[in-house]
Amino acid sequence: MDIITIERKVLEKNDAVAQQNRALLSRHGIFAFNLVSSPGSGKTSILEKTLEHLKGKTEIAVVEGDVQTDLDARRIAAYDVPVIQIVTRGGCHLDAQLIHDAIGNLPLDRIKILIIENVGNLVCPANYDLGETMKVVVVSTTEGDDKPLKYPGMFRNASVLIINKTDLVPYVNCNLEQLRQNALQINPQLKIFETSCTTKQGIAEWAGWLLSRAQNK
Amino acid sequence: MDIITIERKVLEKNDAVAQQNRALLSRHGIFAFNLVSSPGSGKTSILEKTLEHLKGKTEIAVVEGDVQTDLDARRIAAYDVPVIQIVTRGGCHLDAQLIHDAIGNLPLDRIKILIIENVGNLVCPANYDLGETMKVVVVSTTEGDDKPLKYPGMFRNASVLIINKTDLVPYVNCNLEQLRQNALQINPQLKIFETSCTTKQGIAEWAGWLLSRAQNK
Repeated sequence: MDIITIERKVLEKNDAVAQQNRALLSRHGIFAFNLVSSPGSGKTSILEKTLEHLKGKTEIAVVEGDVQTDLDARRIAAYDVPVIQIVTRGGCHLDAQLIHDAIGNLPLDRIKILIIENVGNLVCPANYDLGETMKVVVVSTTEGDDKPLKYPGMFRNASVLIINKTDLVPYVNCNLEQLRQNALQINPQLKIFETSCTTKQGIAEWAGWLLSRAQNK
Repeated sequence: MDIITIERKVLEKNDAVAQQNRALLSRHGIFAFNLVSSPGSGKTSILEKTLEHLKGKTEIAVVEGDVQTDLDARRIAAYDVPVIQIVTRGGCHLDAQLIHDAIGNLPLDRIKILIIENVGNLVCPANYDLGETMKVVVVSTTEGDDKPLKYPGMFRNASVLIINKTDLVPYVNCNLEQLRQNALQINPQLKIFETSCTTKQGIAEWAGWLLSRAQNK
């Protein structure tokens, strides 16, 4: 019982800090999304393509979450946007306090969109509100079409699903229609995009939608 | 401090049960491996190909760990081996007690190899000893070559690395030699296999090695 009680307290404390983050971001009119997926689904590549597409159209900052290394922050730094790397040293998710500390170091007055790339993990980040406007879950076609059923928490808590690596569909065992159906069975409200960072399919549609959401915030 | 203390106690309790599992499996001469990876790396497909290859050559049982659903156990049941499904309902890893309860329901006298398919997660299962003979980590080429550096705990604690989906190398951004180097930088003792469940490349080598290890136990 002790463990459950403490876990509840941890989540309650996290939610309180998340509300502070949400209020702070809202005061500055920042649209923040929390990008979650398995390791290797292509979160950083989608982020890169989004930065390319929105360059000159809006102001973006990035918070990178990783278990170890600053490899992702170094990739993003090439795009000349403010980027902060959080290394969790074994932790399987970001939490609201880590985001609180990170955004305190960002020029919030000059940012319109904050992209938080969470640790690659389809389980743990589902329960941790960071104060984001919405969660965006990425699943790649190479992971198969059953992932929404096997990891429902993440798909239930997300507002957007990006199905990535559509260029690999001819080579893998993944039925796109089945994947969409499985996702909508878990969460009928999901807005779904299909992308390929290799062919750039769907990037303009996703980035355009994101920009219009941020501008109407 | 409370949380850290309790987490240590949880791991200590887990390790004590893991030692009981290890002793029980050892008494029955069972070679047990704990198959870990990201969601969608192909653990279940490798398991299926391994069962096909070793059919009639040894006796295998399977424990399937999933956050939700018994989809994987149903796939494995088609191979006519004893299979037990553990559903963690949100938990991001199996633990020794779950395995203790599961193997109590298996005909241990008639089993030579026990395959435990963990929850798809490159972070949490690294710290939980289940009493297995060894951990086998799977990474697919579609995840990129940087995963050992970004998720070092899992690669440090594994004895074997299976690089899966080698048939997709021409279509993805993954340098196999770099992936091998990154893995060996984290853990120079890793035994590495390269497999494709589509072309069956490497399956005979992996399954043959597994069989000889089990026979020499």
